[in-house]
Amino acid sequence: MEHAKPLLNYIRKHVTLSEEEEVFLCSKIDYRKYLKGQYILQQGDISTTQCFILSGCTKMFFVDNDGQEHIVMFSIEDWWTSDLGSFVSQTPSDFNVQCLEASEVIQFPYETIESLFEGIPKLERFFRKIIEQAFVASQKRIIQNFSLSAKERYQLFHSKYPQIEQRIPQYMLASYLGFTKEFLSKVKKELLKP
Amino acid sequence: MEHAKPLLNYIRKHVTLSEEEEVFLCSKIDYRKYLKGQYILQQGDISTTQCFILSGCTKMFFVDNDGQEHIVMFSIEDWWTSDLGSFVSQTPSDFNVQCLEASEVIQFPYETIESLFEGIPKLERFFRKIIEQAFVASQKRIIQNFSLSAKERYQLFHSKYPQIEQRIPQYMLASYLGFTKEFLSKVKKELLKP
Repeated sequence: MEHAKPLLNYIRKHVTLSEEEEVFLCSKIDYRKYLKGQYILQQGDISTTQCFILSGCTKMFFVDNDGQEHIVMFSIEDWWTSDLGSFVSQTPSDFNVQCLEASEVIQFPYETIESLFEGIPKLERFFRKIIEQAFVASQKRIIQNFSLSAKERYQLFHSKYPQIEQRIPQYMLASYLGFTKEFLSKVKKELLKP
Repeated sequence: MEHAKPLLNYIRKHVTLSEEEEVFLCSKIDYRKYLKGQYILQQGDISTTQCFILSGCTKMFFVDNDGQEHIVMFSIEDWWTSDLGSFVSQTPSDFNVQCLEASEVIQFPYETIESLFEGIPKLERFFRKIIEQAFVASQKRIIQNFSLSAKERYQLFHSKYPQIEQRIPQYMLASYLGFTKEFLSKVKKELLKP
């Protein structure tokens, strides 16, 4: 229950739960620590949990047929990570989720999530809103990749997620933005010019 | 109510509504016809409805700063269209939704959707599942663009959506797949070779 406090604060921003409901919720979730470099999910495995991050930083990525890594998302405190498609359909995942820092997470296991919704129907609303946000962000990213220049994409990330930029290696940010590391350095140097 | 039948059949696959709930639902939605070429939503306008398609075919696309059109989704009968981001946040849309055929739709207006959820809470679950599907499809598409060859992308579309391929011009399919029209012709010719 102590570990779940940041999650409960986060949920309170969206829906109001009674004390009994909070206790019931806590009986359905798990707390878990990961070391830096450990995987929460590996490409090819079935995603068995949805994770809320209490502390730390993760990257979600996939490796294509040529062995190239493509980063689709970074997650830090008060955000979520998992391959929702694999979780919902219980089929092998297309993604890896790896910890870039030692991380603490709250896990919603697949086996208990239905009973959680049955016990607290208003959590359906909460999860609908979370997934809406994720879907909208995913669509915005598709558009930005087409319609913004490399420089604009970096500027947008820099202004929107300054706290993430400080915590990840430059080559990972370059991968996320679809650049080479060298190109990212060039873009950043140009922006520093008066 | 008569017009809403396909929607009610579709909802029944996900949740069970009582007769009173179906009547209440029908009091909160609108039926609307569009001509071929008309817009359900124009880039820059605020999306005021979520649309379920009864008949017809639509494309969702955006135009980048260079005037280039990028198609992100086709929708036909028993599927949805709207810019969810614009709808949820009531901010100007990044997308256009245009009818490629004369189309009939059921519209869920922004002003009534909250009262709909209040009256029938289990619709939260229904919409959560629809958005999950859309989000998962959007993530799969990002991966496919990175990890499949042009030929494989066409083959996947061809096997998954044969009914859409027959209804849309080739140049639009090419835009959706990220090819030129000429390149799509070449890919199709190669696949026809014994």
